[in-house]
Amino acid sequence: MESTYAIISSTNRKGAMSYRLALIYQDLMSHAGIEAQLIDLEQLPPDFVFTALYDNSKKNQIFNEFQRVITASTKFVFIVPEYNGSFPGVLKAFIDGLEYPSSFRNKKAALVGISSGNQGSALALSHLADIFNYLGMHVFAQKPRLMRIENNLLPTGALTEQYLGYLKRQVEGFLEF
Amino acid sequence: MESTYAIISSTNRKGAMSYRLALIYQDLMSHAGIEAQLIDLEQLPPDFVFTALYDNSKKNQIFNEFQRVITASTKFVFIVPEYNGSFPGVLKAFIDGLEYPSSFRNKKAALVGISSGNQGSALALSHLADIFNYLGMHVFAQKPRLMRIENNLLPTGALTEQYLGYLKRQVEGFLEF
Amino acid sequence: MESTYAIISSTNRKGAMSYRLALIYQDLMSHAGIEAQLIDLEQLPPDFVFTALYDNSKKNQIFNEFQRVITASTKFVFIVPEYNGSFPGVLKAFIDGLEYPSSFRNKKAALVGISSGNQGSALALSHLADIFNYLGMHVFAQKPRLMRIENNLLPTGALTEQYLGYLKRQVEGFLEF
Amino acid sequence: MESTYAIISSTNRKGAMSYRLALIYQDLMSHAGIEAQLIDLEQLPPDFVFTALYDNSKKNQIFNEFQRVITASTKFVFIVPEYNGSFPGVLKAFIDGLEYPSSFRNKKAALVGISSGNQGSALALSHLADIFNYLGMHVFAQKPRLMRIENNLLPTGALTEQYLGYLKRQVEGFLEF
Repeated sequence: MESTYAIISSTNRKGAMSYRLALIYQDLMSHAGIEAQLIDLEQLPPDFVFTALYDNSKKNQIFNEFQRVITASTKFVFIVPEYNGSFPGVLKAFIDGLEYPSSFRNKKAALVGISSGNQGSALALSHLADIFNYLGMHVFAQKPRLMRIENNLLPTGALTEQYLGYLKRQVEGFLEF
Repeated sequence: MESTYAIISSTNRKGAMSYRLALIYQDLMSHAGIEAQLIDLEQLPPDFVFTALYDNSKKNQIFNEFQRVITASTKFVFIVPEYNGSFPGVLKAFIDGLEYPSSFRNKKAALVGISSGNQGSALALSHLADIFNYLGMHVFAQKPRLMRIENNLLPTGALTEQYLGYLKRQVEGFLEF
Repeated sequence: MESTYAIISSTNRKGAMSYRLALIYQDLMSHAGIEAQLIDLEQLPPDFVFTALYDNSKKNQIFNEFQRVITASTKFVFIVPEYNGSFPGVLKAFIDGLEYPSSFRNKKAALVGISSGNQGSALALSHLADIFNYLGMHVFAQKPRLMRIENNLLPTGALTEQYLGYLKRQVEGFLEF
Repeated sequence: MESTYAIISSTNRKGAMSYRLALIYQDLMSHAGIEAQLIDLEQLPPDFVFTALYDNSKKNQIFNEFQRVITASTKFVFIVPEYNGSFPGVLKAFIDGLEYPSSFRNKKAALVGISSGNQGSALALSHLADIFNYLGMHVFAQKPRLMRIENNLLPTGALTEQYLGYLKRQVEGFLEF
């Protein structure tokens, strides 16, 4: 069965690095012959944590559009910034609003961590892998952690060769996973 | 220095078990001579994930009220339901909106996990402890995990003796911590 | 490429439940047409933590036999008892003695947790998955956690139907993984 | 009640950095008026994983000496090198051999992570904190992670000012904890 790919920019922060990285990743996949859909959490309805979860499940039309893309995809790449020693709360709130278990069960995920500091994102990606395993989604072992990201995004908007290499190797492996 | 206590019901789900547990916990503390303030995440502004975080930090007046209670408190009890193998995303989004590092640094936290299933909340509390340690807050080692919570809340609204005992022992220890 | 399977009884405790479960698992795989080799950590050289690690790497002949089986295998099933809130130290010491990165890189693992209590092994399996991911080994998402194991091993030595069902589903999924 | 301190060099690797760091830490505590006993896992009986655990609990006289120091201590500093994405297996095997729950219950621990690489030891310290919490021991929130340790130990055997500063602040805080 052919895979359908989605790349998630895992924060709702305006102008986030994650979004820029997601575009770079989408481009890498395109060069590998894969058209991956981009999911940007900045586009979530501002009040979705109240209007799309629990008793309001499936009632928010914009959130339902997000659900449709998730449901249609079988392999996910999550671009994950480190906030407060873990991943952004908005990402987990988004997951909390998705249908269970059809959204992620028996699907596959690749994770990329990004951080400003130089100690970053190991715990963020570990927490997220725990959650995805709980939901029945397999996680690709190699999870690049791009530290000091500001110093590795060139003025042209491109990533340094080193970091680009990390992502290319992940793409190659993930396509086979 | 005297401690100021707050109890956090860590979800925004309407009619949540966490809130009922928070009331029970508040009552237990009251019997121990401690007046703890209750923080209910259901009362957060519906769009706070967009209007109180990042560039909008400090701009949401209702969220600022939450910040004031957090800032004024030195010891926290988090009542944490398990959602999707971890704690609710709304709790982390709430934390992501709080001032850093003054909100939690050098303060202390006790965690209570609740779950419907019978395997619950070990990972939720581990993830949360990681985050609090990152923020410089010490976590009380004993973290009761109240599984099959529906079967342990009596029709009267009271908790079974066994579970109440777990919480009482935590209160005693946490007051000394 | 065809896979070569190994099942690891992850403790050196004499007469361990893990070993009995490993035999049951081996039998399940055999019924699925797979001959998996059994690795029993009880057979490790008693002083391997000193004579097979660090400067003594590759110098212990008995340990080298273990290394050969690991090197030759591409898919692993770890039967993991919970000790002190995580997996047995002897398992990590064993891993610390194996060649890096050839032992596990780009291979695959399935994990089974067993515990006497009824809150067991979620953290044990999470810690182990972190380590395997670090070593480049993919972890199968579904990780059955067999709690109160003593009550679920029949006098005949067989497992209850419920627990056997968990393992059968894992075997089916892992063969495809 | 006065505290009794012990510092654990958490590996059995000969000539380990951890041991050198433990000596530096002991010196720092001495300057703060605290005499801390040093526990060096390199001195463990080579076969302790078989002769001091499970059915052989309390039967190994040399191991019993380690137990005595642990039992007599109330506050512990663990100097923890990163091995394979977590802490050394020998440390967990050591913990698996200690009496439960008297060894650590209601005691306190401070953790220091060291690593050669520059991404190190966040997961190692998180796993260890999980285990200590399970055993009822409170963990001090600030856990310095000394990366690229080889570049930060001066030819004189002293630590760079930056890293020494991290440890000094931890000592100050831990004495009050």
